[in-house]
Amino acid sequence: MPSHAPKKVVLAYSGGLDTSIILKWLQTEYGCEVVTFTADLGQGEELDPARKKAELLGIAPENIYIEDLREEFVRDFVFPMFRANALYEGLYLLGTSIARPLISKRLVEIAAATGADAVAHGATGKGNDQVRFELSAYALNPDIKVIAPWREWDLTSRTKLLEFAEAHQIPIAKDKRGEAPFSVDANLLHTSSEGKVLEDPAEDAPDYVYQRTVAPEDAPDTPEYVEISFERGDATAINGEAMSPATILTKLNELGGKHGIGRLDFVENRFVGMKSRGIYETPGGTLLLEAHRGIEQITLDSGAGHLKDSIMPRYAELIYNGFWFSPEREMLQALIDASQKHVSGTVRLKLYKGSVRCVGRWSDHSLYSEAHVTFEDDAGAYDQKDAAGFIQLNALRLKLLAARARRLKG
Amino acid sequence: MPSHAPKKVVLAYSGGLDTSIILKWLQTEYGCEVVTFTADLGQGEELDPARKKAELLGIAPENIYIEDLREEFVRDFVFPMFRANALYEGLYLLGTSIARPLISKRLVEIAAATGADAVAHGATGKGNDQVRFELSAYALNPDIKVIAPWREWDLTSRTKLLEFAEAHQIPIAKDKRGEAPFSVDANLLHTSSEGKVLEDPAEDAPDYVYQRTVAPEDAPDTPEYVEISFERGDATAINGEAMSPATILTKLNELGGKHGIGRLDFVENRFVGMKSRGIYETPGGTLLLEAHRGIEQITLDSGAGHLKDSIMPRYAELIYNGFWFSPEREMLQALIDASQKHVSGTVRLKLYKGSVRCVGRWSDHSLYSEAHVTFEDDAGAYDQKDAAGFIQLNALRLKLLAARARRLKG
Amino acid sequence: MPSHAPKKVVLAYSGGLDTSIILKWLQTEYGCEVVTFTADLGQGEELDPARKKAELLGIAPENIYIEDLREEFVRDFVFPMFRANALYEGLYLLGTSIARPLISKRLVEIAAATGADAVAHGATGKGNDQVRFELSAYALNPDIKVIAPWREWDLTSRTKLLEFAEAHQIPIAKDKRGEAPFSVDANLLHTSSEGKVLEDPAEDAPDYVYQRTVAPEDAPDTPEYVEISFERGDATAINGEAMSPATILTKLNELGGKHGIGRLDFVENRFVGMKSRGIYETPGGTLLLEAHRGIEQITLDSGAGHLKDSIMPRYAELIYNGFWFSPEREMLQALIDASQKHVSGTVRLKLYKGSVRCVGRWSDHSLYSEAHVTFEDDAGAYDQKDAAGFIQLNALRLKLLAARARRLKG
Amino acid sequence: MPSHAPKKVVLAYSGGLDTSIILKWLQTEYGCEVVTFTADLGQGEELDPARKKAELLGIAPENIYIEDLREEFVRDFVFPMFRANALYEGLYLLGTSIARPLISKRLVEIAAATGADAVAHGATGKGNDQVRFELSAYALNPDIKVIAPWREWDLTSRTKLLEFAEAHQIPIAKDKRGEAPFSVDANLLHTSSEGKVLEDPAEDAPDYVYQRTVAPEDAPDTPEYVEISFERGDATAINGEAMSPATILTKLNELGGKHGIGRLDFVENRFVGMKSRGIYETPGGTLLLEAHRGIEQITLDSGAGHLKDSIMPRYAELIYNGFWFSPEREMLQALIDASQKHVSGTVRLKLYKGSVRCVGRWSDHSLYSEAHVTFEDDAGAYDQKDAAGFIQLNALRLKLLAARARRLKG
Repeated sequence: MPSHAPKKVVLAYSGGLDTSIILKWLQTEYGCEVVTFTADLGQGEELDPARKKAELLGIAPENIYIEDLREEFVRDFVFPMFRANALYEGLYLLGTSIARPLISKRLVEIAAATGADAVAHGATGKGNDQVRFELSAYALNPDIKVIAPWREWDLTSRTKLLEFAEAHQIPIAKDKRGEAPFSVDANLLHTSSEGKVLEDPAEDAPDYVYQRTVAPEDAPDTPEYVEISFERGDATAINGEAMSPATILTKLNELGGKHGIGRLDFVENRFVGMKSRGIYETPGGTLLLEAHRGIEQITLDSGAGHLKDSIMPRYAELIYNGFWFSPEREMLQALIDASQKHVSGTVRLKLYKGSVRCVGRWSDHSLYSEAHVTFEDDAGAYDQKDAAGFIQLNALRLKLLAARARRLKG
Repeated sequence: MPSHAPKKVVLAYSGGLDTSIILKWLQTEYGCEVVTFTADLGQGEELDPARKKAELLGIAPENIYIEDLREEFVRDFVFPMFRANALYEGLYLLGTSIARPLISKRLVEIAAATGADAVAHGATGKGNDQVRFELSAYALNPDIKVIAPWREWDLTSRTKLLEFAEAHQIPIAKDKRGEAPFSVDANLLHTSSEGKVLEDPAEDAPDYVYQRTVAPEDAPDTPEYVEISFERGDATAINGEAMSPATILTKLNELGGKHGIGRLDFVENRFVGMKSRGIYETPGGTLLLEAHRGIEQITLDSGAGHLKDSIMPRYAELIYNGFWFSPEREMLQALIDASQKHVSGTVRLKLYKGSVRCVGRWSDHSLYSEAHVTFEDDAGAYDQKDAAGFIQLNALRLKLLAARARRLKG
Repeated sequence: MPSHAPKKVVLAYSGGLDTSIILKWLQTEYGCEVVTFTADLGQGEELDPARKKAELLGIAPENIYIEDLREEFVRDFVFPMFRANALYEGLYLLGTSIARPLISKRLVEIAAATGADAVAHGATGKGNDQVRFELSAYALNPDIKVIAPWREWDLTSRTKLLEFAEAHQIPIAKDKRGEAPFSVDANLLHTSSEGKVLEDPAEDAPDYVYQRTVAPEDAPDTPEYVEISFERGDATAINGEAMSPATILTKLNELGGKHGIGRLDFVENRFVGMKSRGIYETPGGTLLLEAHRGIEQITLDSGAGHLKDSIMPRYAELIYNGFWFSPEREMLQALIDASQKHVSGTVRLKLYKGSVRCVGRWSDHSLYSEAHVTFEDDAGAYDQKDAAGFIQLNALRLKLLAARARRLKG
Repeated sequence: MPSHAPKKVVLAYSGGLDTSIILKWLQTEYGCEVVTFTADLGQGEELDPARKKAELLGIAPENIYIEDLREEFVRDFVFPMFRANALYEGLYLLGTSIARPLISKRLVEIAAATGADAVAHGATGKGNDQVRFELSAYALNPDIKVIAPWREWDLTSRTKLLEFAEAHQIPIAKDKRGEAPFSVDANLLHTSSEGKVLEDPAEDAPDYVYQRTVAPEDAPDTPEYVEISFERGDATAINGEAMSPATILTKLNELGGKHGIGRLDFVENRFVGMKSRGIYETPGGTLLLEAHRGIEQITLDSGAGHLKDSIMPRYAELIYNGFWFSPEREMLQALIDASQKHVSGTVRLKLYKGSVRCVGRWSDHSLYSEAHVTFEDDAGAYDQKDAAGFIQLNALRLKLLAARARRLKG
């Protein structure tokens, strides 16, 4: 990447204090034109204030992009990922990871539309998000410049940031004067919290950290049952009512959040080499995973399922590390999608005080054969004597090994 | 295996009606001497009645083997498996699978000690257990004969079995007259239930199926916190009190069971090619898995962890399919064990109404570096500018791909 | 499978003595109608004699199917497999394995067309081919019966076979009176030889075993150069001349055979649990593999390539074991095919006395960037300082590990 | 790593012009004390001149380390790697990659012994070797500084380098005045050549590039047979004569080189993200790989072998990328080594004009059972009827899939 200054930059802009400072810093540091891009990914914040803030900071109306990406986010990113039952390091549903490629995609597209030569983001130099933003951007436009102010500037303390804001007439909300006790990222899939009060992994996360789920102790005393229907691996209806992808996830978030489901206290390995501790709340995603596994249990062949399971950790790692737009992620997606043709049917979940369990599943595509498995007379569906031969041939190499061991000892 | 009749058989004998019928059938069908082997694997049944029953059926005292294998079971089978965080098909903790190799091992050893040329088990020809018993037996003694009466005899209905029992003066408990509404297997790790009333995977399992855990709705209204300590990947203490492996698992079962934790309603793929539905209760194992993951989060390197994760499905499949005593399981165990050297420390779990969550973890072996991860000034521990180069080189191939795509289009 | 007798059987019929005996045995044993299917897969034998022989044995003309499947074989089976660079156990190009699914596919289709309820093959009960034939057949028609006479009849010696042939007026070629010194399978991809004189893996295979390749010592004293062109992973031209798939493989066989290339003396693990020794000759396939690897070297991204490499052994094992028509093979194929979009270009091979080496490759789709790799001035294409950051972050976890080791020691 | 200047540096010193310039540059740039380390890894150069050159450049005798590491190199690095049959990207025997960790290990140890706070190497910022050197160093001493002058200095052209050399009285051999037509690395395992005349992957490598092998055309007209014996996976004897590891590899290099074996023209993916083209000569290693595979064919169980095959690409990638001293490489090594317990026996190779083939193998540890595999009467070792059950149960899920497909269509 040529190192000279950008002329026009598309900034991923939330309207908050930090990205407002970045906006101003880009203008002053590089003297470049700034285009702001604010996306609704379901983070639960109004977008209008971002427009007003951008205007206040001198951005021309045609340079302010505000978009509702919730359906695209769920349809083209979240759902394909859930087809894989993806979990990073066994537990994390990748809520932050999966949102970054979409933001980068729009940044690069808006750069093309507005003639910008650079994009900028507000991620720090210690985390995974910088990697995810930038790998995605470069994969989509090899000549784009990426500006990561947190790696460049000298605003290395809260005090300096506030001084910069004041010096440049950036309004500072009262509650931003002091430091937040932790840092938050949110979208339709999850809320993540990390840093500061959460930095000691031995200490319980304080209650006030949780924002999207009630405490299990405060959840209803009565279980609730929900039915989720799937077509070709994607959720399409709740309790029989067909809904769009983002509507489904929104509804599942409500259900899960109400029952205190989807909390995760987690220490993970960042791609940049350090461990960090995060608190994740993924209420709808947790229901979705349980449901998807449930429908796969009866519709997916064991050969297909075991193959999927075996590549899942790698798939999850790719997404976590920011390689969504890579050939290998796309190859794995082709493999996964090829398995989902018959993953259609309905699952019943039981939600209760922090946990969700699949308690029933049915499908026209079911491979479950009561005729075969029954303890009762199976009318010849299965010949138990076949098992003797099956075992003998599976045992043959083990017998040869045992015979060798005996021979060499004897 | 030569097909002629066995002369002396060691039978895996529970003392129940089915294995008593097998005992008698072996005597009458083959005219062979029978040695009974009854093991306490923590199934929660008295062993004395098995001795009396065996004596009643004419087994000589020196041919009655009754053993408490609980410590060996947990130390040499359960714990090594938990080092891998093994889950079959994403959810099943392998409670039945892991017990079979130990039983076979003792059957083969007792055969050697008593001069028996065969072993026998009570598993049917439709399930996985026959495979697990027999592969283990053949791997330990290539010349052993294995008798699986359910695959051989013509006692193919409940009525015929009871007739046989009556004809041979086998006592029949009153509650065994009718058919059990489902079939149960239990040991210190879990209770599994399957068959009959459970055969429709669309229908909720009835409450009376659950035997080892209270319903989450009936669990205490107050959460309970438990601390589990690990050394080199194995649990060694609960709430600071050192305990033997079997004692730990017993204690964890009590804790988990009391809080309704570890229930699983599951449709799985059997090795013999059909799907089956099981209800599993693994209270202690569920706590142990969560705790082991928690301690690994701070003590295991990411390279080691991701490698473990990637081979776990294969490891779990091997155990499920009965290949515990195979070179490849042993190779994978060597890999797993090599990762556990520093998996030592303590984890705090929160137990509440059906779910368990790790909420704290600490260790002298921790790799978590607050100095690196902190949002505060890190005193030079980490240079954020390094991230720029890291990203550039990770992006290089993606840029070259994007440049090709553009070149071929242009 | 219902065990009662078949009414009409489609037999994979070569026209040779063994399958002629099977034909007659089916008629006499089951009193069933027989349909013969003889395919040209490039085994290098005339098909006309098979027709005459079938007629002689009483098969009605409409029940004699003779087909040239060479193009389908190479296009739909061999080429897809070579996209994966598939090698079983590191060395075997799967020449026999890949032909079986196609034969089964046609057997099942002809059964449907002729109203037959069964198919039959001439593979023995010890080998892999029975598995491949039967798994393919069942995957395509779950109700088909498969007859494997070698597992059923009592013609267990050469003498008995010949007696049966004589008793049923089956003509016996003079050279079939004695036993062949080894057994052969051939198709357009390879010739395999095994058994009898080859059964001691310590002994060199005698020269007369090799049928499709000259001895390297007898190959031309001058190297020959060949250029193979690829489009999307498949060979499309030799020395600039476009050819059909089967024509290309035929031509490559000539070239490889002339230079003594593609011989393999191999001890492999059969799916049925035993080791066997085979001599394989795959002249064209060996050139094709080397060429495909060569073109991938410049057109395939490393992420894509390493992923392909990592799943290749599993893919090869599936084909070897007979699971061509399985969901997991198809999923892997989807992954592999997704990688081949840009695997287009040309490779130059050097053929000489038993070996082949890729010595040049070029493509419009090349990802090789002389601008980046050059030892000369790269005009800013690559900033060597990026490597420092790249290394630092890759090293971070290793440093943390080393620091722990030091801390715990100190 | 603190960025301030090193006080004492251990330099990987070959005695050649480039590392002599580095030596002087370290002295002048940092004013630091320099310790030279020159290792004999079998590169085929005298070490005495390196000592004289170092003395000439003002290095104190106690700061000159010259060591013969050939035995350690082969025993602790090459042999463990060959137990895995490691090939990077299907073809490359990792000759350069495997030498770097050992050099770094000694650099770090000498730093500890001499009180040096830094190590330095002569690898450029574009290649893999910088990564390998540095990851190894950091893994062994988290506080060590690593100096990579090629990433730091401004001697960016041949002219500037020579000017620097002249300005500092560094002797310049006549043949070093002009630029070498390509760059070479050599050790006991291989010679690699890359750069300049080799940079166009479409062009054949010129003959003069090859240094360790004769052209196949110039190799003897008569094949030569060699027998290699193994114990637990490592070569221990040639033609029955026991030899040390380095002696064996030296002898195999002679044999392979004489017959023109082990040449590879290769385009590979560097860890730093670009493709590069190399010419590798690995004569002895090529024999060793073929032989090791040959002995594994009869002594390794299929389960063990297939598992090894499946993880090999990852193992090779780790070594290529410089992660020899990482937990995951050590875990994989534990897995691999656990498989080699019975990999003992002897293999016969045929060497002829550029190629090597295993043509015989035998062992007391053989699992090959002629009794089972024979086409002749096997005296009951194997019951062909077992195959029917084996196939039926392997087919069951495929039948259920086919039945579903039919049901949904019908």
